[in-house]
Amino acid sequence: MKHQHYFENAIDQLQAENRYRVFADLERVVGSFPKAIYRTCDTNQDEVKDRTKTSAKEVTIWCSNDYLGMGQHESVIRAMSDSVSNIGTGAGGTRNISGTSHPIVELEKELADLHGKEAALVFTSGFVSNQATLSTLPKLLPNCLIISDEFNHASMIEGIRQSGCAKKIFRHNDLEHLEMILAAEDVNRPKIIAFESVYSMDGDVAPIREIADLADQYNALTYIDEVHAVGMYGDHGGGITEREGLAHRIDIIEGTLAKAFGVLGGYITGTRKIIDCVRSYAPGFIFTTALPPAIASAAISSIQHLKNSSLEREQHQLRVLETKQALYDEELPLMPSQTHIIPLWVGDADLCKKASDRLMQEHDIYIQPINYPTVPRGTERLRITPSPLHSQDHIKALTDALVETWTFLELPFEHYDGSNEDETGKQSVSDQLQLVVHKSGG
Amino acid sequence: MKHQHYFENAIDQLQAENRYRVFADLERVVGSFPKAIYRTCDTNQDEVKDRTKTSAKEVTIWCSNDYLGMGQHESVIRAMSDSVSNIGTGAGGTRNISGTSHPIVELEKELADLHGKEAALVFTSGFVSNQATLSTLPKLLPNCLIISDEFNHASMIEGIRQSGCAKKIFRHNDLEHLEMILAAEDVNRPKIIAFESVYSMDGDVAPIREIADLADQYNALTYIDEVHAVGMYGDHGGGITEREGLAHRIDIIEGTLAKAFGVLGGYITGTRKIIDCVRSYAPGFIFTTALPPAIASAAISSIQHLKNSSLEREQHQLRVLETKQALYDEELPLMPSQTHIIPLWVGDADLCKKASDRLMQEHDIYIQPINYPTVPRGTERLRITPSPLHSQDHIKALTDALVETWTFLELPFEHYDGSNEDETGKQSVSDQLQLVVHKSGG
Repeated sequence: MKHQHYFENAIDQLQAENRYRVFADLERVVGSFPKAIYRTCDTNQDEVKDRTKTSAKEVTIWCSNDYLGMGQHESVIRAMSDSVSNIGTGAGGTRNISGTSHPIVELEKELADLHGKEAALVFTSGFVSNQATLSTLPKLLPNCLIISDEFNHASMIEGIRQSGCAKKIFRHNDLEHLEMILAAEDVNRPKIIAFESVYSMDGDVAPIREIADLADQYNALTYIDEVHAVGMYGDHGGGITEREGLAHRIDIIEGTLAKAFGVLGGYITGTRKIIDCVRSYAPGFIFTTALPPAIASAAISSIQHLKNSSLEREQHQLRVLETKQALYDEELPLMPSQTHIIPLWVGDADLCKKASDRLMQEHDIYIQPINYPTVPRGTERLRITPSPLHSQDHIKALTDALVETWTFLELPFEHYDGSNEDETGKQSVSDQLQLVVHKSGG
Repeated sequence: MKHQHYFENAIDQLQAENRYRVFADLERVVGSFPKAIYRTCDTNQDEVKDRTKTSAKEVTIWCSNDYLGMGQHESVIRAMSDSVSNIGTGAGGTRNISGTSHPIVELEKELADLHGKEAALVFTSGFVSNQATLSTLPKLLPNCLIISDEFNHASMIEGIRQSGCAKKIFRHNDLEHLEMILAAEDVNRPKIIAFESVYSMDGDVAPIREIADLADQYNALTYIDEVHAVGMYGDHGGGITEREGLAHRIDIIEGTLAKAFGVLGGYITGTRKIIDCVRSYAPGFIFTTALPPAIASAAISSIQHLKNSSLEREQHQLRVLETKQALYDEELPLMPSQTHIIPLWVGDADLCKKASDRLMQEHDIYIQPINYPTVPRGTERLRITPSPLHSQDHIKALTDALVETWTFLELPFEHYDGSNEDETGKQSVSDQLQLVVHKSGG
């Protein structure tokens, strides 16, 4: 085939750098979360018709973004099933051309209400919601400057790039640097500050109030990505902005239906005019089939449940703390996280892959290695996400498996001190993690 | 709010140009396709909490892209319901991080088989599949030139733009112009020809064989968008490339699960290496939650049904021909279409909107106006899509409603002759449409 060698080279390069990704073929089973059936047939190398050479075993998933297990919640499943039975499987068109189903209209009202905003707009994914919004809104503001946290998600970076507008990057969560950039601009120049509430690979949280203060002082709009927080923080699952009482201080809150809410899709909320602009001007919204009504129905059910119940959130935080404590007690190198995301330092792509493989092969535990480009090279890690449905037995089994794996691979047992990163003035890990210090001290 | 007047101006401008879009709130009911419940509460202007001011009526949808009604097919609904009950509602992660469900692995095998290719890759939408693939692959080919049909879909244009590679546009379906562009380049320069099989707003078909010949002659890869053809053409629903026996001549075939297959999602098929490159390099694929397993299960069911049954395709084509004939007989201005897409010429944004509104208000018929930017200004139209489930009574009601609307709005009754378009050497409309000429002749 033409040009085939270029494609071969591109794949060879990934393999040489130990960052060729092999997907784990998983089948979750309702009622047995966080367990799933894992099939070992390599789908990437497999012949299309060779479906027989597979073997299966049960594994425990420790890296799901179905953070609360809502993807298997009885009422959410029922809402989706009922909607499929009553309405059908697909939306049948773009939002403009026959695809606006009644459930998606209701879902947008539910989301606006969740964040206390005038309006909401649903997209097929969180990626698309960031990409479409951040590529569209700045174009409507003359000479707009986008000011973006350096650790923003790939979808935000793509959107900002596609806007074609001027952008400046501020150091991660660094208010002084952000202010320096803002202060250097004409106060009348339109600006958008784009950042996240919870950063997904480190689990740290943005100084939202201070960013909102700066935005007011220097006349900037604020755009926050709450995908790793909605459903999980705030009394009604409105995210970190709800927990901190700051939702009204942020102009656009973006979130996802695919993580804590357990379904699929992304969204933005804001003033009616802003939402209407994205609705009317964003190609990535206009020219794409709407989410199926059954997906919208399931999302409504999940959001409503988590608005009214804090049980899942409380149990989640408890399990997270127990997991952090168990790993800390074994001197495994926990990175400091203020949230439910538990990154375990490895710092090498090859070893990270080997640790993940060993956990799967020897311990029936699935934790995907996190390598470049998801995190910077040299900061490779295992990223562990406990759910309310992980039991203390699961936590014990995980801890034992990690200790065995760390021992086998001769990875260091030592509390993470961040010395590989160019940061100073950090709290000790135990302070950061709010852990009880049993062993070697903070 | 900051910068609010810019957003207000942006919306005002759309309204001034008669291209502000109002979405129709529809609730389809399984078993009654193509009917649906239409709610008249304007969701765009509505207060979030004001859910009471709605009224509902039953309408007939004549503009759905659920072309074959498979979104309400019993076996597709059952596949989705069963999968939701057994596996849950969401995938729980990106493809790489816990989101590769067994059904999506099976779906990719099914799609590769459908098009006779080595491998396939599923995306959350057809838009994303075009955008992600066309922005990624060209970057892997040094000094790549993308040669794109001028009528390509917005998602292809976005992808090509984002690739940052050189591009040239050839006049729509114009082989001479395409060859002129190809011949001007070094034969060794990597090139990709990107085009569609069926153009969605005109219903015409690309000269696929001739484009493939040129691609071979001038050393170019071929990328075809078959979203308005898969499921509907070819003995197994493999699209126009299957019908013409040309699938093996095209390097990358892109399609959708959201139109004839009645579900959600997009995909590409091709050699294992090409698919692996997109899988490994495209941010829009890597960093997004996978389609829910239940969506994949429904899609498999739909694809398998249409691989084995041609009944829906035959009935579809029959209804399309009957509809075209009925409208032609009334001297309504059908634009020449070689496919199931029936564009009815209006040529004015305001009148197009008024025609659509009258059909909905007076005749309970829903056909969305197609205005700029979906089609060029001055070529506004109604776009009618019959399905196998539209009866002869539905066709009669549609025809009567259009005649009344055309009369009321004083729109001309005359066969479309394309004189507003800069084209020559056209076949007569009746020839193009393969219609029986009863009245005023071709």
